[in-house]
Amino acid sequence: MIMTRVPMQIQLTQSKKEKPDPATLVFGKTFTDHMLIVDYEEGKGWHSHRIVPYAPLTLDPAAIVFHYGQTVFEGMKAYKSEEGTIRMFRPEENMKRLNYSLDRLCMPRIDEENALYALNQLLQIDKDWIPTLDGTSLYIRPFVIATEAFLGVAPAKKYQFFMILSPVGSYYKEGIHPVKILVENEFVRATKGGTGSAKTAGNYASALKAQEVADQQGYSQVLWLDGVERKYVEEVGSMNIFFKINGEVVTPAINGSILEGITRKSILQLLRHWEVPVAERKISMDEIRNAYENGQLEEVFGTGTAAVISPVGELNWDGYKMIIGNGETGELSKKLYDTLTNIQTGKENDPFNWVYEIKKHIAQLA
Amino acid sequence: MIMTRVPMQIQLTQSKKEKPDPATLVFGKTFTDHMLIVDYEEGKGWHSHRIVPYAPLTLDPAAIVFHYGQTVFEGMKAYKSEEGTIRMFRPEENMKRLNYSLDRLCMPRIDEENALYALNQLLQIDKDWIPTLDGTSLYIRPFVIATEAFLGVAPAKKYQFFMILSPVGSYYKEGIHPVKILVENEFVRATKGGTGSAKTAGNYASALKAQEVADQQGYSQVLWLDGVERKYVEEVGSMNIFFKINGEVVTPAINGSILEGITRKSILQLLRHWEVPVAERKISMDEIRNAYENGQLEEVFGTGTAAVISPVGELNWDGYKMIIGNGETGELSKKLYDTLTNIQTGKENDPFNWVYEIKKHIAQLA
Repeated sequence: MIMTRVPMQIQLTQSKKEKPDPATLVFGKTFTDHMLIVDYEEGKGWHSHRIVPYAPLTLDPAAIVFHYGQTVFEGMKAYKSEEGTIRMFRPEENMKRLNYSLDRLCMPRIDEENALYALNQLLQIDKDWIPTLDGTSLYIRPFVIATEAFLGVAPAKKYQFFMILSPVGSYYKEGIHPVKILVENEFVRATKGGTGSAKTAGNYASALKAQEVADQQGYSQVLWLDGVERKYVEEVGSMNIFFKINGEVVTPAINGSILEGITRKSILQLLRHWEVPVAERKISMDEIRNAYENGQLEEVFGTGTAAVISPVGELNWDGYKMIIGNGETGELSKKLYDTLTNIQTGKENDPFNWVYEIKKHIAQLA
Repeated sequence: MIMTRVPMQIQLTQSKKEKPDPATLVFGKTFTDHMLIVDYEEGKGWHSHRIVPYAPLTLDPAAIVFHYGQTVFEGMKAYKSEEGTIRMFRPEENMKRLNYSLDRLCMPRIDEENALYALNQLLQIDKDWIPTLDGTSLYIRPFVIATEAFLGVAPAKKYQFFMILSPVGSYYKEGIHPVKILVENEFVRATKGGTGSAKTAGNYASALKAQEVADQQGYSQVLWLDGVERKYVEEVGSMNIFFKINGEVVTPAINGSILEGITRKSILQLLRHWEVPVAERKISMDEIRNAYENGQLEEVFGTGTAAVISPVGELNWDGYKMIIGNGETGELSKKLYDTLTNIQTGKENDPFNWVYEIKKHIAQLA
């Protein structure tokens, strides 16, 4: 890969923060010493790439992001291998998806290689923040917001692109364990023709109410159905979903309303490599229930950057409870989790060339 | 009305800005000298009501509003009557709807009377910013954003409520005139079960792409259809829509995915008062086309706070063009526009007690 070298201003912090205890890290509450900022202005393009101390943003109260939600984001992780190298998992895919999301929201595309180059520099600077305890990682949040002060409903003429970093703990504090999921019949996350396939704020805001109702009933996430027929499975919480039915692994096909997860894509590749039968297609709740009744619903799991694999132990569909695999983690779910996390952290070979090593690019820098 | 008197800190600006020429005002680009801020923290509630000089906000880059779109807003207008009193149009309804939106987004409710009390004070302070030229007004934008720094997808524990003010020009620079509308077949604004009935950022972000496509084809807005059957009319741009068909005025019924406009509600009341037949029900594009072909599609208009009434001169449905009223403003549309704006500005009696006079409350203050 050729790294485009944009001019980068680097201003290091004068007062490094104290690093948190890796054993008690929680998700998304602690941030590192530095962040990346890039400005955009119509006619001028993306400019003023800079790494600065992590600090509050200053925005006009009329900035479009506050009113009309023109914002997109990504989520990635960096790991430190036993040899001290910094590893990431398919970050090119995240940058590609960021541009897909930017297009959908009428926002200007970024240069994917420049963004990765900037991330390389940022990770070098804050590399001491990457935790090494088993299951921990450095979560990376790139995001773009519309900053123009204007109350008209129209694409902004000014934007800012940020990357912030947060050391995060293991998603499973007591090892991988299955969760209980409520099938959502009232609320809809997204519909074809909407923004469901883009990683944008509105999709998450609209999900909060359903999540609140599920919480109250003792469920940790909701399973979203399609907004048109309310029959077909879409996503689970903010993850993609997979069902192992009678030996075949089925996941909803990309249809314009679900997010095309990078973990989803990697799992499909891994399963095909293992010669496990897979299918990307529509899957209805009736089919799930039939499979369950016939004893063929073998495993259910969600996939995403945060949890990697999240096994589902119970599905509640309008009061009908399906207990999957005696509420325990299935064999395939476990194998996928172990293989993916081992590839990510460098404990296992990477036959697909998924891992992106930061040190390679460090060598290329000045 | 009893005004609850919350303690209010007032810090006046040291350097008043120059006021713009009322003849060249554009929508939403100029802001007054002051703004309202109220803080919320879980366990503490809404507190620290203050009016301060209009200034940039300072927010953590991880503030939930940037990532998961937890934000709602309102839009209102204030007018100065010939006697110098400040008049508003049904602001109690906006505060009620703000709470409806807050509920949908899992955000804390505000005290509606406190908010109106605060607005009274803010308008008194910035009253010289209310333009008096025909068709101008002071646009009021209340909004609430999630400020907690946390990357987890969950309702925030910290929020801020703002009101900012913007002097705006006439929506119709050269008098009221009909617009050309493209019926949207690809993109969907909202679906039942989503957030379409709340005034939240995500609904507007998702609309930008369709608007861009319409612009390119020479249309000024899109007419949204329902996301399920793609048959029934929902809204036009960010306004409600009305059709006069063979003497009856029809508007889509409130169905969970359209916004319940305050102008919409007022127009229905006005039409019933005038004994014009009205109906709130489902209305399909097939019905519109049939009415057009039978010569019964007499008038079409959008309604909203910004434009009040926006007549539609052309509807393009998949290439089939319907020219309404020879592309001129209909008699009823004109009468509704004149009556509503005359009530708002005080040129006509207010039989429904819609007008809220600020001076009444000024008298009550200290």
